[in-house]
Amino acid sequence: MEVNAQSLVRPLVEQLHAYAPGEQPKIKGLIKLNTNENPYPPERSVLRAIRKAADERLRLYPNPTAERLRIKLAKFHRCRPENIIVGNGSDELLALCVRVFVEPARATTPETPRSRSTVQYFEPSYSLYPVLADIHGAHKNAVPLGQDFDLPGVAALAQRWDFEAALTFVTTPNAPSGRAYSKQALHGLCREQRGVVVLDEAYVDFAEEHALNLSLRLPHVLVARTFSKAYCLCFLRVGYLVGNPVLISALHKIRDSYNVNGLGQVAAEATLERLAYYRRNFERIKKTRARLTKALTDLGFSALPSQTNFILAKPPKSGAKEWLEALRERKVLVRWFSYPTVKDYLRITIGTDAEVNTLIRAVKSVLRNLE
Amino acid sequence: MEVNAQSLVRPLVEQLHAYAPGEQPKIKGLIKLNTNENPYPPERSVLRAIRKAADERLRLYPNPTAERLRIKLAKFHRCRPENIIVGNGSDELLALCVRVFVEPARATTPETPRSRSTVQYFEPSYSLYPVLADIHGAHKNAVPLGQDFDLPGVAALAQRWDFEAALTFVTTPNAPSGRAYSKQALHGLCREQRGVVVLDEAYVDFAEEHALNLSLRLPHVLVARTFSKAYCLCFLRVGYLVGNPVLISALHKIRDSYNVNGLGQVAAEATLERLAYYRRNFERIKKTRARLTKALTDLGFSALPSQTNFILAKPPKSGAKEWLEALRERKVLVRWFSYPTVKDYLRITIGTDAEVNTLIRAVKSVLRNLE
Repeated sequence: MEVNAQSLVRPLVEQLHAYAPGEQPKIKGLIKLNTNENPYPPERSVLRAIRKAADERLRLYPNPTAERLRIKLAKFHRCRPENIIVGNGSDELLALCVRVFVEPARATTPETPRSRSTVQYFEPSYSLYPVLADIHGAHKNAVPLGQDFDLPGVAALAQRWDFEAALTFVTTPNAPSGRAYSKQALHGLCREQRGVVVLDEAYVDFAEEHALNLSLRLPHVLVARTFSKAYCLCFLRVGYLVGNPVLISALHKIRDSYNVNGLGQVAAEATLERLAYYRRNFERIKKTRARLTKALTDLGFSALPSQTNFILAKPPKSGAKEWLEALRERKVLVRWFSYPTVKDYLRITIGTDAEVNTLIRAVKSVLRNLE
Repeated sequence: MEVNAQSLVRPLVEQLHAYAPGEQPKIKGLIKLNTNENPYPPERSVLRAIRKAADERLRLYPNPTAERLRIKLAKFHRCRPENIIVGNGSDELLALCVRVFVEPARATTPETPRSRSTVQYFEPSYSLYPVLADIHGAHKNAVPLGQDFDLPGVAALAQRWDFEAALTFVTTPNAPSGRAYSKQALHGLCREQRGVVVLDEAYVDFAEEHALNLSLRLPHVLVARTFSKAYCLCFLRVGYLVGNPVLISALHKIRDSYNVNGLGQVAAEATLERLAYYRRNFERIKKTRARLTKALTDLGFSALPSQTNFILAKPPKSGAKEWLEALRERKVLVRWFSYPTVKDYLRITIGTDAEVNTLIRAVKSVLRNLE
């Protein structure tokens, strides 16, 4: 008897949009300023540590809880290893949060408050959050950011915000805008919230302050960090969450037994021994960011002040999508999002100084063409 | 206002047992025959490929679908890349199967057949399956294997088996017994099944035949493979599923965007270029397995015929748990499971010839003590 494969898939999954992987440019010599990767390589001793570990040990299972890495991270953040869970990139951990803290809508009774099934986030912010909510069959509450992507004031929040939402994601600094939120503002937001709040600090090393302490002071706040962007390890998939041991141990319960690959653990541990190198890179990137912001502004762009390793900027004289294409023809790849709040903007990753110079030349060439 | 952290965790997750990581022996000189790792290292060119890739590229995201690896695997298995999904170890993929094919019990209406929420598996088999069912809030149907861990006959099956179960896991060859099932028997089982069947072939490279073709011939059958055991890459977490593109693309929809770390992809690709080396290792392990089986039998053990890289054996004169401790005192670590079907047995991983000689000496020493 022949089975119809389509009928075997849960209707909820069937209805999801297929995952669209980020653009993998195959054009030779293209400058890639589209996915917020760090333009500088990992420190040499990190590469050495990986090469040294590529030996007989690969046949063995890695440490299941990334124990040594958690101990080092605990020292770094002045907390205990029990405050930390390491994941296969922070994406894995964001997904686990939805599954641990949010009831699938269909699994609730009519008496269950809608908030118990709600994933809440600002719009725009990291586009993964609604995807994770859909996969889980949760309600979504997408709340618009204020003017220039600032946090909405209390009055504006009161209209749309759910103070009881089971899970709230806050990208801070915000992506794709690059705007940072003060620790005080974040504290105010968290204090009013009854459900879990994840402060997603993927870009925080390029900002002026961070809010990690909130995850150690408030029992319902988790902070997400990653080795991908600031620490140049996208390829190896290592992220972590910091927070209350009760929440952390609930997350441990449902993760895969060996979720963090061994060489990722080795690389992350070695990275924590070389923070000075990375801090110098942060300063370089911030300098390049200031220079690019000024150059774009001088050329007629409206660039938002950024505290990340990218800039969101509204180009002059033509639509953002046309600019994306025109820059691409000049071998510079930036990012454009089609959704309403940001469709007039380009998101440009801060590259090396040489890459940014090429971008500026390409921008000037496009402008000449538009005149 | 202080939030109670415990109240933020879903009751379903709250009730789960905390994950107990496998034993990480810290005794110096201990011989580790407890987690079925391969005793031989990866081929040298695999290590070279990893070292060579530990460079500037680590700052970039890896290919999100492990495209080159899928192309190579498709060639290897004579199918198309669309038939394959690669995961962060096969554990990740087994978990995704539960989430894609099985309705959480609480998300169904009273009219929904119980089978739609059922994860089915034999007992004993891979102990992860019930854990995955519990995490998802699914029903479990654990069906006892027959005499000596053989597949139950049709009549025996009819009593307990659910031919409509949304998802059935079959570990083949079986773990922890090491027993293999014929392709014909597996075909018969799959043919009768209306839901998805995952043939979990984690140990199949040590067996006499495999059933991969069933995943290409039957639309509801998936085969799970891993680079961990046979290909000496536990540390790097690379597994994959082969099957109908409709099922495979549903799984792609809910996985993390960059689920397979880049160096894992590099290592797995290099491995597929050196199959002759691994095949020689399989033969060595099978020879050692035959020698160990005979030696244990001669010493009074009742050892099951194995087609894996481990042996399940009932020790003489004393309980299995006492044997575990006695061997451990002699610096040989094997595995003992407390559940009823196998509590009288030890599971012993096939090590190198030298390791197995040490084990045999330790066994003789324990026997002398028992006399």
